[in-house]
Amino acid sequence: MIGKTERYVAITGGVGGAKLCLGLAHNLNAEQATFVVNIGDDFEHLGLHISPDLDTLTYTLAGVSNPELGWGRQGETWNCITALAEIGGDDWFNLGDKDLAIHLRRTEMLKSGLTLTEVTEKLTRSFSIEHKVLPVSDDRVRTIAHTEIGSLDFQHYFVREKCVPPVRGFDFEGCARAQLTSQVQAAFGDPDLAGIIICPSNPFVSIDPMLAIPSLVGALRKSQVPVVAITPIVGGEAVKGPTAKIMKELDIPVTALAVAEHYSGLIDGFIVDQQDSVLTKGISKLGIETIVAQTVMVTLPDRVKLAGETIEFLRRLRRGRQYRKCGQ
Amino acid sequence: MIGKTERYVAITGGVGGAKLCLGLAHNLNAEQATFVVNIGDDFEHLGLHISPDLDTLTYTLAGVSNPELGWGRQGETWNCITALAEIGGDDWFNLGDKDLAIHLRRTEMLKSGLTLTEVTEKLTRSFSIEHKVLPVSDDRVRTIAHTEIGSLDFQHYFVREKCVPPVRGFDFEGCARAQLTSQVQAAFGDPDLAGIIICPSNPFVSIDPMLAIPSLVGALRKSQVPVVAITPIVGGEAVKGPTAKIMKELDIPVTALAVAEHYSGLIDGFIVDQQDSVLTKGISKLGIETIVAQTVMVTLPDRVKLAGETIEFLRRLRRGRQYRKCGQ
Repeated sequence: MIGKTERYVAITGGVGGAKLCLGLAHNLNAEQATFVVNIGDDFEHLGLHISPDLDTLTYTLAGVSNPELGWGRQGETWNCITALAEIGGDDWFNLGDKDLAIHLRRTEMLKSGLTLTEVTEKLTRSFSIEHKVLPVSDDRVRTIAHTEIGSLDFQHYFVREKCVPPVRGFDFEGCARAQLTSQVQAAFGDPDLAGIIICPSNPFVSIDPMLAIPSLVGALRKSQVPVVAITPIVGGEAVKGPTAKIMKELDIPVTALAVAEHYSGLIDGFIVDQQDSVLTKGISKLGIETIVAQTVMVTLPDRVKLAGETIEFLRRLRRGRQYRKCGQ
Repeated sequence: MIGKTERYVAITGGVGGAKLCLGLAHNLNAEQATFVVNIGDDFEHLGLHISPDLDTLTYTLAGVSNPELGWGRQGETWNCITALAEIGGDDWFNLGDKDLAIHLRRTEMLKSGLTLTEVTEKLTRSFSIEHKVLPVSDDRVRTIAHTEIGSLDFQHYFVREKCVPPVRGFDFEGCARAQLTSQVQAAFGDPDLAGIIICPSNPFVSIDPMLAIPSLVGALRKSQVPVVAITPIVGGEAVKGPTAKIMKELDIPVTALAVAEHYSGLIDGFIVDQQDSVLTKGISKLGIETIVAQTVMVTLPDRVKLAGETIEFLRRLRRGRQYRKCGQ
């Protein structure tokens, strides 16, 4: 049972993170869970403001996401993008007909003067989502991939070039000046905050754009609650997407240990997959409490279970005061 | 047979005019026919620049128009607008999924700095249309309907309110300052110009926004070729749309004669429907040469035939020099 006044913040990117957030939403009511979402892969395309991670989380929480594709909406059609290609328009970013609605609506509301936070609140409410979904910032942050064929806007690297060009590093344009929104600040400063979760998203392109915002790192460090990350790497491979390829190209071993090292100093706990239980010892040496769980979430019960174990882990760390904040 | 160097300009609105333009395109090659199109019902909606008359003509010439609806594309789906309504977006202007492509592409190209004329050329080429389709101006002209419930942007009156509020008159915002494009000027100034056609579009909301541009009236008056209009009113009713309702509300008799009177001073010839042959005498009294034809175009052969008769009428007026310009 989770105490009424226990509140949690989850920091998330798209697909893998969204699965865990759905599990959290099944464990925690709307007052108890807040989702802080990456905006580094937002972009303007065809005159539309597209927020891929916000959309994936919205569709996932609303139960309308496309499980085959891993992005977009279920029961989707592609008549607009097909017609657009026929008249010479860009079709490298595949926009479904239903999916287009959220981009049109977001763009319209942003143009009317609403902030991305306000727009996201309206959009998630319109999908009957009760939990708070917060873009990490209302300022512009844009992930740039430095690759062997040059520096590319994130979606050009990720979707247009399909992550093929070897990557040398990432920059997050605007991160130094970006401010957390008052809503995100309030979530981290909530006296009832009981734990912070870094979702199993790509650390380098989904979580790092948020950690690159100085006040987010500040909020994590200041907060008097444990921080737990869940590995996106299982058995030396990424559960989904190009995380493993990117790690190889950045000369980082493709292991959960390397992910834990990446977050070292920010997290108190780490969850590795049961396939990687051998790594717990090495991660513990970093001063990070580690537990083993089934982190590969295929079914909804998988997501609910992992989310429950994550909350339980945070409670244990809190009870035992076995976390970084207490040693300082 | 039409001489190689005979060129014609047709001034047109949407549906009815587009049908005649298709007929003209079957009679005249790309060098011989230029279509000058109303932009008074263009509007910005959902962040998109929508040009209903340009689109209707484009789809009609491309053979992809929706014959049941009278607007939009054939084989259309409505998944985006349905999804948009579900999340609180405006759905009073029904945008099909395929149709959305042209609005996205136009908006994107306009934002990139192209003129509406340049955008229209690219769009019509992408639909393999060889004939010149020219917006009458690259300046902003917007039809305003003054109704009993207030002054409304044209699409709000026409589509959202379905022309229900009785109309007292129309204004064409921006018309006084609007310039004809150099392409439109060139078409009217072409030494090989052999005739000008005012298509059977709604005179008050499709043709008048163009005639309200001073330099268009100037070009018509200066040109040394006959001008012929085709009635959109047959047997006291509009062939399509709200023309008859609007005429009643403006206290204008719903007759082809009243349309001829409306154009009086600008046209040399008028084509009435065979149902209205009794009106020819009255129209002739206005100093307008009048012929009778089947103006209701149901099939493609109907369109080709009426267009051929229109061209023949213009040739006869030219040969006989039986037109206004010669009397001056």
